[in-house]
Amino acid sequence: MNSRRIILLAHGSSDKRWCDTFEALAEPTLTAVSNSRIAYMELAEPSLDAVVHEGVAAGTREFTIVPLFLAAGRHLRKDVPAMIEALEQSTGASIQLCPPIGENPLLGQAIKDVVALQLGQNTGQLGIQS
Amino acid sequence: MNSRRIILLAHGSSDKRWCDTFEALAEPTLTAVSNSRIAYMELAEPSLDAVVHEGVAAGTREFTIVPLFLAAGRHLRKDVPAMIEALEQSTGASIQLCPPIGENPLLGQAIKDVVALQLGQNTGQLGIQS
Repeated sequence: MNSRRIILLAHGSSDKRWCDTFEALAEPTLTAVSNSRIAYMELAEPSLDAVVHEGVAAGTREFTIVPLFLAAGRHLRKDVPAMIEALEQSTGASIQLCPPIGENPLLGQAIKDVVALQLGQNTGQLGIQS
Repeated sequence: MNSRRIILLAHGSSDKRWCDTFEALAEPTLTAVSNSRIAYMELAEPSLDAVVHEGVAAGTREFTIVPLFLAAGRHLRKDVPAMIEALEQSTGASIQLCPPIGENPLLGQAIKDVVALQLGQNTGQLGIQS
C-alpha cells in the first residue's frame, strides 16, 4: 500500500467539456498510479481542499501535487502555494508541489508527435524530419 | 518545400519564464517540422497576427494552428476563431485551427510518464502498475 496520495491538479471551469478533457488526460495516470486522484483549483469539483481532506480522513499524511498545467503562471507561483500552506496548517499533512507537467521534456516530445499526427491527418503532407 | 506554415499557438504572459517554458515545449516540433513557428495569443511576442502576416509576406497561403493548450476554454472557442476570421479576411490566407494538444490521447500517456518519473525522483516509491 502506498500511503502517499498523488493529486493531479487542473485549473477548473464551469464548462463541463473542459473538465471532461482533463479527466481523459488524467485517466492513464489514475489507472496506473495507486492512491491518485484528480482535483481542481477552482470552478469545478472535486476541489483540492476536498481531495486533501478526504485523504487525511482516510489516513493519508503525505500528498504530492502534480499540476496539469503547461507552464507556471500566477496560479502555480502564488495561489496554489497559498492553498497548500493553509491545508498543511489545518490538517497537519505534508503537501509537496511538483513543477507543472509542461516543464518536463517528455511533453515537448509528445507535442511533436501530436503535430506529426495532426499534419498527417489534415494535409497528407508531413514535412517532418526525423 | 512545404508551403503550409504550422503555428504552435500558446497563451502569452508578461512573465518571461512562462514564455521560456513554451519555447522549450515547442522546440522539438520547431526542429522537426519545416516552416513551423511559435506564436502567442496575447501578452507576448511574436503575436499570431505577426506570424501570419510574416508568412503571407513570404508567400505562404495556408496555415495550420496547433494550440499549445491542454483543453479548450473561452480562448479557443471564441477569441482565437475571431482572430482567425479577421486574419483570413485581411490577408486572404486560409487558416485551419486544430484541437488543443490536450485532446490527443498521446498527452495523457506523456502525463503518466511524467508522474512516474516525478514519483521515482521524489519518493523512491513508485506505486506504478504497468
